[in-house]
Amino acid sequence: MTNPTAALLIIGNEILSGRTQDKNLSHLATVLGAQGILLREVRVVPDVENDIVEAVNALRARYTYVFTTGGIGPTHDDITTAAIAKAFGVKVVRDALAEKILRTHYTDDQVNEARLKMADVPEGARLIDNPVSSAPGYSIGNVYVFAGVPRIMQAMLDAVKYSLQGGVPVGMLSITCNLGEGTIAEALTRIQEQFASVEIGSYPYFKQGVLSTTLVMRSVDAAANKAAYDAVHTMIAEFGGTLMEDPNKTA
Amino acid sequence: MTNPTAALLIIGNEILSGRTQDKNLSHLATVLGAQGILLREVRVVPDVENDIVEAVNALRARYTYVFTTGGIGPTHDDITTAAIAKAFGVKVVRDALAEKILRTHYTDDQVNEARLKMADVPEGARLIDNPVSSAPGYSIGNVYVFAGVPRIMQAMLDAVKYSLQGGVPVGMLSITCNLGEGTIAEALTRIQEQFASVEIGSYPYFKQGVLSTTLVMRSVDAAANKAAYDAVHTMIAEFGGTLMEDPNKTA
Repeated sequence: MTNPTAALLIIGNEILSGRTQDKNLSHLATVLGAQGILLREVRVVPDVENDIVEAVNALRARYTYVFTTGGIGPTHDDITTAAIAKAFGVKVVRDALAEKILRTHYTDDQVNEARLKMADVPEGARLIDNPVSSAPGYSIGNVYVFAGVPRIMQAMLDAVKYSLQGGVPVGMLSITCNLGEGTIAEALTRIQEQFASVEIGSYPYFKQGVLSTTLVMRSVDAAANKAAYDAVHTMIAEFGGTLMEDPNKTA
Repeated sequence: MTNPTAALLIIGNEILSGRTQDKNLSHLATVLGAQGILLREVRVVPDVENDIVEAVNALRARYTYVFTTGGIGPTHDDITTAAIAKAFGVKVVRDALAEKILRTHYTDDQVNEARLKMADVPEGARLIDNPVSSAPGYSIGNVYVFAGVPRIMQAMLDAVKYSLQGGVPVGMLSITCNLGEGTIAEALTRIQEQFASVEIGSYPYFKQGVLSTTLVMRSVDAAANKAAYDAVHTMIAEFGGTLMEDPNKTA
């Protein structure tokens, strides 16, 4: 597959402590997938400069796009911009437009050095509009730096998504049945071998004590995906399985 | 801090496609944190052998413990065991006890080669009991291989957690107020400088259009953590802030 690829770097102790449940991964994956950009790796690192630098440099060398979330606010634990600048070997500079945006958004007595820190970007970065709380994100090279608050992150993604080089969208079809994975595994392997351009995933679930299995077909080839889906549907019938509601439907 | 460290490797296309929301990260972080083991990094990789091998080897060299979730079922996309064996440079072997467990759990007509694949482990692995659906997890070296289904993952973690070398538990205190991060940033920096053994995190939230800020204090030093909490509490009062309910309370 020649689709563009992407990685997400989640920056934040609050995710690693278990205190906060990330909500940005699935949103990013869904939006990118619709444009044919494949999310291929996610990393979560703490608010530690070296860890961020290392992850950014590993990921930006490997994937078409890297998105980061978190750590661009005004407080002492917001160190993403310093780390991104270090990763790119550039200085942190105060962006004149970003400063103007912040000075317009905040009243005079609210403007202070901590808030103006949110106008600091790695030299050469391009601002990303933040219609929610004004403090902008930015991109540098193939790295897009977003806020961690989901509403703001989503607005920033909306602001840049059409400027990304997309690919053929990845279609997804799924079917859930009351058969155990082990029952259908061998037949499913044969279907997977028959449809090499389709990625078939098998996911077991417990629902009210009953084990069910969801089969997911993903492909950029819509016809092959539908044919694989039909083959799976037939296979389920041949095993005497009953179709069930997908317990994990997101769309 | 000399606490043991841990990483989580989430293996699965279904997370990267945005279809499934991971539920294991926060559970693992919470259980480990209570034992003084610090979750320091998380990676999500697809069902691709080389990606899994590379991540396992990077993480097991760096952290005290590595936990993996996903990819140990009976279907063609379950390739975790082959990848773990490759990462350790050992063969995949059929474990006699695991096979006996599976043959006891399944009726004779349910036993097939796909299900018996779940008795295959990297040579030298130690089984981890699965009271939910019988197919065991295992550990090899400092790597613990769990199922991805949350109920099974949690049972496997319960089965091994007391055998892990713990550390001083990390205490967590939090306080939420209606002040913007930028308002308190400078004063908060001074409190952070005063309490070097406490990690103070600042997290903005939108709640019904109002921006609030949660301050989280984490430390293995309970007295310092409480003192930092008191200082933050006093600071909020000095700024005329109102305490609010924590919008993100997990415990």
